[in-house]
Parts: sequence; structure tokens; C-alpha cells
Amino acid sequence: MSTVRQPPTDLQQALAALYQSVAGELRRVDARLADELHHDHAQANEVIRHGIRLSGKRLRPALLLLAGQAVGPLRDEHITLAAVVEMIHTATLVHDDVLDEAAIRRHVDTVNARWNNETSVLLGDFLFTHAFYLASTLESTYACRTIGRATNIVCDGELRQTITSGDVNLSEDDYLAIVEAKTAELCACCCELGAYYAGGDEETVARLASFGRNLGIAFQIADDLLDLEGNETNTGKSLGTDLAKRKMTLPLIHARENLDPRERKNFLTALVADPAIARETLLNHLTRQGSLEYTREQAQQYADRAQAELTLLADTPARDALAALAEFAIARRG
Amino acid sequence: MSTVRQPPTDLQQALAALYQSVAGELRRVDARLADELHHDHAQANEVIRHGIRLSGKRLRPALLLLAGQAVGPLRDEHITLAAVVEMIHTATLVHDDVLDEAAIRRHVDTVNARWNNETSVLLGDFLFTHAFYLASTLESTYACRTIGRATNIVCDGELRQTITSGDVNLSEDDYLAIVEAKTAELCACCCELGAYYAGGDEETVARLASFGRNLGIAFQIADDLLDLEGNETNTGKSLGTDLAKRKMTLPLIHARENLDPRERKNFLTALVADPAIARETLLNHLTRQGSLEYTREQAQQYADRAQAELTLLADTPARDALAALAEFAIARRG
Repeated sequence: MSTVRQPPTDLQQALAALYQSVAGELRRVDARLADELHHDHAQANEVIRHGIRLSGKRLRPALLLLAGQAVGPLRDEHITLAAVVEMIHTATLVHDDVLDEAAIRRHVDTVNARWNNETSVLLGDFLFTHAFYLASTLESTYACRTIGRATNIVCDGELRQTITSGDVNLSEDDYLAIVEAKTAELCACCCELGAYYAGGDEETVARLASFGRNLGIAFQIADDLLDLEGNETNTGKSLGTDLAKRKMTLPLIHARENLDPRERKNFLTALVADPAIARETLLNHLTRQGSLEYTREQAQQYADRAQAELTLLADTPARDALAALAEFAIARRG
Repeated sequence: MSTVRQPPTDLQQALAALYQSVAGELRRVDARLADELHHDHAQANEVIRHGIRLSGKRLRPALLLLAGQAVGPLRDEHITLAAVVEMIHTATLVHDDVLDEAAIRRHVDTVNARWNNETSVLLGDFLFTHAFYLASTLESTYACRTIGRATNIVCDGELRQTITSGDVNLSEDDYLAIVEAKTAELCACCCELGAYYAGGDEETVARLASFGRNLGIAFQIADDLLDLEGNETNTGKSLGTDLAKRKMTLPLIHARENLDPRERKNFLTALVADPAIARETLLNHLTRQGSLEYTREQAQQYADRAQAELTLLADTPARDALAALAEFAIARRG
């Protein structure tokens, strides 16, 4: 079985340019991750190393470092916390891949595809708990509290998403509440921690947190679009999993709300039919209702709100990189 | 599908007697758990409430409270931390039940049997992260650090167990290292926290931690015996899962080491055969080699070591209850 498919060169290059001002710190984060997660048991070590490769974008550590750099000087705590948030994000990815029964993630076989679900569940738990332990090695309980609360909100969002899965009547408000919890909360937490440990005052920390939250929502809405419109070569992961899981995403909710009663009935029938067959019918509905366009506009609005939070910051390469990341979140093809 | 089978009256009565000196505090812990884990979403709330019922014995909170009471006065921190360790233990149970594909736990349908594996994975994550958040609300990072480290060791033990699962050559040393990590570490952590927050000096805290560790090993070895010898009515859970998962437990390792080469070959063949058919063959081998007896003696030795750590403590009902718990760990039938 081949484990590495065509590498996402364009994406990696775009990210490298955005992360330029924290490139050295990101290398320290990677070294820290490798060091912290080294395991004496050869097989366990192989599983852990494979897991930590899955999250290719390093978006959360970059957000934490850039938010810090945009506010003040970076400190050792930033490196530690960037490693912590990457571990937490990877833990959620590894568990997501179990839930989604996904086989490919960022051009690499998922842990459950390469080993099994058991190993994935335990690897996720190992990463969660290691992250919390690492956060607790800092001096105050601030980081533990912020990360503990945020991570719990993430899991709560995932739990609500799973419980409402298959509910074709999910409202746009409920959809957004789930997205805000499962995706945006950790991005907000990253930016909050970055700004706080760089010595930001209360308002600055709150604004950076809001930047992260809006960016996270934009990112997730764009992800929902990619799952419908993307192709596996660009995104490097299994697609159509939202449809297969009957997950109501923003384009589907918009179409449902705007179809006339007869069409809505067809639409709802297609939603619960075999997704392999229904995909084309659904995409036709989405196109005719302008639902993909509406969704793109929504993503743009959240990206704009994110950028608006940066206006009070000094003009630095880090601030520009954060602004560019908000655009990247919605323009990316992978 | 019925959710509650015959209640384990004897077991609950025996535990109530052992926990008598901390009965009021245990009620506060239960109230705290209900309060902390209340969820506005009705369905999520149902899943969480079901999950928190699964761990019937409340052994970890009781250990934490009794270790505290045996050393000094109990404080609010003890109630908070007892709720924390129960959440962590429940999280590991919920995830274990996914791994074991178990259908019954403590006479109640498991979360994966009643809902599905997805819900179980996310409920476990929700409980883990809530526990860490709650620990971080205490003043210092001591509790976060102790709990973070211990929980990571627990997950590491589970990961090593899964990775070595099916390895019929697992050594007794490796078996014990896994048991010490996956079961004994959290018991040690409970006793350590209890003693520390009751104002115990360094030696006392270390001795109580060692008590918990030895009790935990005794408890797990007894659990392995129950999985082979017990019946589902007493234990209130699916049995034979160790055999079905080809998990090498102490009796099996002892028999393997002591059989002559020809018998060992039959034994190893039976080990990898259909467990439903092989169970009787294996039990015959275990009986003839005295492996069940050897295992019982080992459990007794760990219980004795646990009790030896209590000798310097003042003669209090809490100390007596801890000593009795060490006996209970190996004598229980459920």
C-alpha cells in the first residue's frame, strides 16, 4: 500500500510564504513535537510519528505564533503552547478519521486505515492527555484553563454534530453554533494564547481571539464547500464524506430553505438516498438555488470580520500574514 | 432492549460499608458530576448521563477521599478532584467499550451498544477535556500536572496493550508494565492527590501513591481472573473479551511459561483459535498448570504490599477502609 500520494506542493508553498516571519519558531515547534512524543516502544513510536504527520498545514501553531508576534515578543511559552495546540488538533483529526471512516488525510493513509480504529482512538487519547500535561508544565493555570475550556467546547461541538447527524431539518443557527464550537473555538484559543503570552492587554487579546474565531468559521464553511466541490488530488483527503454521513452543511441548508415545496421533497429524498447516486442531483439543486454562491459569500463575510479585528495592530509582517491567512482560509483549494 | 439487568446488590452493599466514612463527600461528588456535566441539548444530556452511570463502583473518587481523610482534613479541592478522576475513569471506560466491542458494562448497555461508536468516541473526549478543564480551575498547576501526567501514562499503557495485542509471546514483565500504566497509575494518582490536598508530607504522599499503585495492580490482576472465571450476572459486564481480543493476561502467560513444549504448542494453537471453542481447552491448561492459583497469589502479594504502605498512618476508619479496599480488590466477584 502506498502511503504518500502526490504532494500538495502549491499549498505548502503558499503556506510557507504566509508563515515566513515565524518560520524559525515553527521549526522549533516541530522539533518540540518530535521530542515530546518520542516513544521507546518502536511500534508505538511509528503510530505516533505517523499521526503527527497527518496535520500538514500547521495552521494552529502558526496562528498562535503569528498572533503573538503581531502583539509583542515571542517567548518560550509560545513554542510550548504551539506544540500543545497542534497535539490537540491532531487528536481531534485522528478521532474524526475514525468517525468519518476516512482512508486518506493530507495525502497520507489515516491511522485507522493503516492500523485500526482501536489504535486511532488510543492515539487520539494519548495526544490529548500529553497536550494537557505539557500545558500544565507552564507556570500559571492560565494556559490549562484556556485550553481545557476550548477543547471541551470543541468536543461538545463534535458531540452535538454527531447527535444531530442525519437531521435534515438542522437550522442555519444550529449549524453555525456547531461550527463555532468544533472548528472556530480552537482557532480563537490559539490567537488568544499567542496574544496573551506576548503581553497583549485585555482588549487586544479579545480582538485576536475574535479574529481566530471568525477565521475558523470561514475556514470550516470553505471546508464544507471543498467536500462538495473539491477533488481528492488537491485536498489530499477523502471527499463527499459529509454527504455520506448525511451531515447538513451550509449549502444544503440554504437550498432546503429556498426550494419550493415540491422540489424540497425531491431534495430531501435525494439527501437520504445513497449519496453516490444522489450527489449529482444535490449539486444540481445547489447550483440552481445559488447555494454554493451564498455559502462562498458567507465565508467571505467571516473572513472580512476576522480582518477587521486586526485594524488596531501595528503594521507588521505578522499582522499582514494573519490578514492573508483569513483570505487563504476561503480561497484555498486544499 | 432492556437497559438494566439484575442489580449487583451485594457488591453495592459491600462498597457502601467500605465507603462509609466518606459517604457524605461521595454524595457531593455525585452532585458535582451531575452539575458539571449537565448539557442543554437534551440528547447530548442523555448520552452523558448514561455514560456517567457506567462506572458503578466510584472506586477512584472513594480512593481519593479516603486517602485524604486518612491523612488530614478533607477540603473542597477533594470534591472537585474526585469528580475529575471519575470523569477521566469514565472516559477511559467509554473508549475501552468501543475497543472491546463490549455490549454490557455494570449491568447497563454500553454507550456504543445503545448509540454507536461515534458517540462513544466523542463522549469519551468530552469527559477527558471537561476533567482537565475542571482540574485547571484549582489554584495551582499541581493537580493539572499530576492528573495530566497520570492520564497520559494510562493512555500510553492502553496504546501499548493494543499494539502488543495478539502477541502470544508477551512477557510477564511487559504485562505488568502495561497493567501498572493502564490501571494502577490512575489509582496511584487518586491517592497521591487525596493525601497531598489533605496536607500530607512528601513521604506520606509517596506512600499513599504506592498504596494506590499496588492496589491498582492487584485489582487488574483480579479483573483478568474474573474475565476468565466470572459470570456475567455477578460482574455485570460482557466476559471472555480478553480471550476474544487475544489479550495475554497473567494466567495465560504463566501457563505458557510452564507447559512442556508439546503442550505449549497445543496451548498456543488454542489461543489463536476461535475463542468460543478454545475457552474450555485453555481453562483446562490453566487449571492443570496451577496458573489460576499462581495469579491469585500474585494479586494477594500486591494487595499485601498496598496494605504495608498504610502502617505509618494513624488508626482511623479511613485507614481501615483503605486496607479493606485492598482485600476487596482481589476478593470481589464483580
